[in-house]
Amino acid sequence: MARLVMKFGGTSVADLDRIRNVAAHVKREVDAGHQVAVVVSAMSGKTNELVAFCRGAALLHDAREYDAVVASGEQVTSGLLAITLQAMGVDARSWQGWQVPIVTDQAHGAARIASIDGTRVIQQMEEGRVAVIAGFQGIAPDGRISTLGRGGSDTSAVAIAAALKAERCDIYTDVDGVYTTDPRVVPKARRLDKVSFEEMLEMASLGSKVLQVRSVELAMVHRVRTFVRSSFEDPANPKTMPNGDPFGTLICDEDEIVEQQVVTGIAYSKDEAQISIRRVADKPGVAAAVFVPLAAANINVDMIVQNVSSDGKETDITFTVPAVDYERAVSVLESNLEGIGYQAIEGAKDVCKVSVIGIGMRSHAGVAADAFQALASKGINIRAITTSEIKISVLIDAAYTELAVRTLHSVYGLDKA
Amino acid sequence: MARLVMKFGGTSVADLDRIRNVAAHVKREVDAGHQVAVVVSAMSGKTNELVAFCRGAALLHDAREYDAVVASGEQVTSGLLAITLQAMGVDARSWQGWQVPIVTDQAHGAARIASIDGTRVIQQMEEGRVAVIAGFQGIAPDGRISTLGRGGSDTSAVAIAAALKAERCDIYTDVDGVYTTDPRVVPKARRLDKVSFEEMLEMASLGSKVLQVRSVELAMVHRVRTFVRSSFEDPANPKTMPNGDPFGTLICDEDEIVEQQVVTGIAYSKDEAQISIRRVADKPGVAAAVFVPLAAANINVDMIVQNVSSDGKETDITFTVPAVDYERAVSVLESNLEGIGYQAIEGAKDVCKVSVIGIGMRSHAGVAADAFQALASKGINIRAITTSEIKISVLIDAAYTELAVRTLHSVYGLDKA
Repeated sequence: MARLVMKFGGTSVADLDRIRNVAAHVKREVDAGHQVAVVVSAMSGKTNELVAFCRGAALLHDAREYDAVVASGEQVTSGLLAITLQAMGVDARSWQGWQVPIVTDQAHGAARIASIDGTRVIQQMEEGRVAVIAGFQGIAPDGRISTLGRGGSDTSAVAIAAALKAERCDIYTDVDGVYTTDPRVVPKARRLDKVSFEEMLEMASLGSKVLQVRSVELAMVHRVRTFVRSSFEDPANPKTMPNGDPFGTLICDEDEIVEQQVVTGIAYSKDEAQISIRRVADKPGVAAAVFVPLAAANINVDMIVQNVSSDGKETDITFTVPAVDYERAVSVLESNLEGIGYQAIEGAKDVCKVSVIGIGMRSHAGVAADAFQALASKGINIRAITTSEIKISVLIDAAYTELAVRTLHSVYGLDKA
Repeated sequence: MARLVMKFGGTSVADLDRIRNVAAHVKREVDAGHQVAVVVSAMSGKTNELVAFCRGAALLHDAREYDAVVASGEQVTSGLLAITLQAMGVDARSWQGWQVPIVTDQAHGAARIASIDGTRVIQQMEEGRVAVIAGFQGIAPDGRISTLGRGGSDTSAVAIAAALKAERCDIYTDVDGVYTTDPRVVPKARRLDKVSFEEMLEMASLGSKVLQVRSVELAMVHRVRTFVRSSFEDPANPKTMPNGDPFGTLICDEDEIVEQQVVTGIAYSKDEAQISIRRVADKPGVAAAVFVPLAAANINVDMIVQNVSSDGKETDITFTVPAVDYERAVSVLESNLEGIGYQAIEGAKDVCKVSVIGIGMRSHAGVAADAFQALASKGINIRAITTSEIKISVLIDAAYTELAVRTLHSVYGLDKA
């Protein structure tokens, strides 16, 4: 017997039939003797409709009112799922964010969870009652409804799992796990049984859409074992691993991963643009002079490369921004020419960042060299390189994206079953 | 400067355009220097959709979950109206039932308001902030959302007006007031400037759809001056009375009505069925033997007539039930023949109850006689008669309904402008 949190997104609760399917998944876990809390999103399309209402009422609108309107979507789903569970003979009740309570900060519209008091929910779960919790929402210190920003239900689920001291947080989604890379690019991509929080964080931030970055951060901080699995399995009899474990990918502490791979996955991120600032002074304060104005203009800077100056006087700085912000970024830099001091700005819009991710590379030499060699053997030019402890990222021409991903996937042995 | 409650129903907030119209009505009162609380229903059709969701999930469903689902409709409208008001430069915020709080009893799905703590709302209204309150809902002692049952927004509005010590509760509706009778039957029907709580209660319970009976009861108990007016007037420049007062009907204490009419209105109620029980014993307990089984079968009995027995041994009892319950009522009585003891049951389905209502008849003799004479002059047979202090009701064949209503409307001088 364990305590589980199960999270279902908007497409999983899109209509009454899909809600019945969710209820069957829940019933299976209850029948297995588990204490269950379910976190639900709004029916798919509903949140967009409510957001459109708010925009139609006024383009600039009070975030507190937006929250009251938009949070109603999850309120409806939570009630309907509780009714459906009861009809199946499963004791259940709905919990709105303010009822739990899930206390957030005051940042209405994009709030962060500050604390969750799980006492009453746990008490009812121990009495055998399934807790159906409206995701994506909480109550702010002003006593008003808050929402966590779009897609925040994953984050709700992980935070609730932490507060309820759940053994596992199951994220039901439209894929059956986390893959070594994008299967649309590499048909040989393999589902990972386990992946560490740190690796998943790198993958999530690199555009893998399986989980929200914030939810992975939270899972890592609170050590919430998070399990990605498919909501399209037969609820009564879902596919299992050969050892009987459920089928999917467990995101967990690296200590729990017995057979560490050197490289776990290959991620890529298109729609990036590269900007290089040539011959800036190599002195304190130059990097700040470049990036403070960009931050003020709300431009998200990703990869930053600055090499050691050869002459100790001047250097080049290269970084990437989202392709849509490219022109704006260049114009911000040009209008700050005086403050920065540089010879020229160069840039390219059709670039892609490809990353090799693996906790094992901390203790393995030569991982980067293998990547560079493999890319060179295919004639792929590397524009820039950055590395972290568990990641090597290279910036290349976008046209070579698929070739680079396939090459790297193969060179690290990820193709093998 | 006064404190006002304004209530708008589902058709008045059906879409963003209609919500903007509501906001313009509110802005007018704010600009006139009033403190305003607005009570809103869900967008028309929304509640039906949410109820259908609950029924689709399970025909028999937990009323607490039903409440969570259905109350979301008013939650959306309250937020959207607050946003719209802000966009017009009017300071406003939404209040959910649990935020006020509006505390109800535990009867989820058809709860009654137990108490309203208006302190915080009043405080914000005094700071010049319009309170947009979600109607139809509250919070039950179990800490969960409750709803007041269908159409409960009128009741919310009146209860809120009492709690906020408002000078007036304006009910915006699709008619411009309360009429002396149904204008579809009597084109000469006149709008009443004022009507007493007691009279309105009789009219409301007799099928005048302008206000819910419960809201009138509550207004009477708490002496809430309730004003029925049209939401289709030009919000910026609505029609007024010759003396500058707003145009509509004020439901108020009879002391406030200077020129008392003997008769205020003629109401009628179709879809009634008459049942007469012949030759029941004239002894204690017989009436109970008849009506207890009917109540147990959830059949609503309206008019009850029992005459004084001529021989002291046997009498007849006549009463009316909704036409749809006629067959069921007869079968209940037949299966209780032994307990009641009677000779025969007679009945008629095509009957109508017509009522003459007026506080003035308390002090005027001959009002009933006038009615009977007028009906006789048109050859309308009276099947049964009941009276209260301020009402005379006659049961007639349904075919004569319009003729009877027109005749009575005329005989009491209500046709005159």
